[in-house]
Amino acid sequence: MTFTHVVTFTWTGDAADDPAVVDGIAESLRRWIADADLPGLRSWSCGRDAGLTGNNADFAVVAVFDDVDAYAVYRDDPEHRRIIDEQIAHRVGQRTAVQFAG
Amino acid sequence: MTFTHVVTFTWTGDAADDPAVVDGIAESLRRWIADADLPGLRSWSCGRDAGLTGNNADFAVVAVFDDVDAYAVYRDDPEHRRIIDEQIAHRVGQRTAVQFAG
Repeated sequence: MTFTHVVTFTWTGDAADDPAVVDGIAESLRRWIADADLPGLRSWSCGRDAGLTGNNADFAVVAVFDDVDAYAVYRDDPEHRRIIDEQIAHRVGQRTAVQFAG
Repeated sequence: MTFTHVVTFTWTGDAADDPAVVDGIAESLRRWIADADLPGLRSWSCGRDAGLTGNNADFAVVAVFDDVDAYAVYRDDPEHRRIIDEQIAHRVGQRTAVQFAG
């Protein structure tokens, strides 16, 4: 049984106004995932909402792990926390997350 | 480039009070996915939030497709709409979705 983490964001401030800001967030996350030592991470992706419907959030991250312990390593990785603190936290309007076995 | 759909739910009414109601929703969705003809669906999972943090939504679905057209077939599948209409829609407190290329 794998363990899945999903999170959606709506953006405020410069992230809502300037696509380059969100591109910068995505690029930092992707670089971290590419370079990090995250055992038990099976898949990871993120992206800007495609705009198929007007009611959606703006951005999502999906990650699948071997188990909850692998998720916790990912969640608490110092580079992850740095990106959240420096590039994400102050730009979040709404954040909605779920972690589930499956 | 794949295409990913994520959706989170918070539940109201009987779904918030009775785990068996949410189990029934998950079972209907899983049976539909197992039986349906959904070309271009690469992976699908759903589950109840694991309760690691108090701020999360209650339930999520993650699906990965070959492309946006495969997602549209999934979204509009009559059995999907039936499950949404009969088991999900009236029990949703908040629903947050994102579809993204990736």
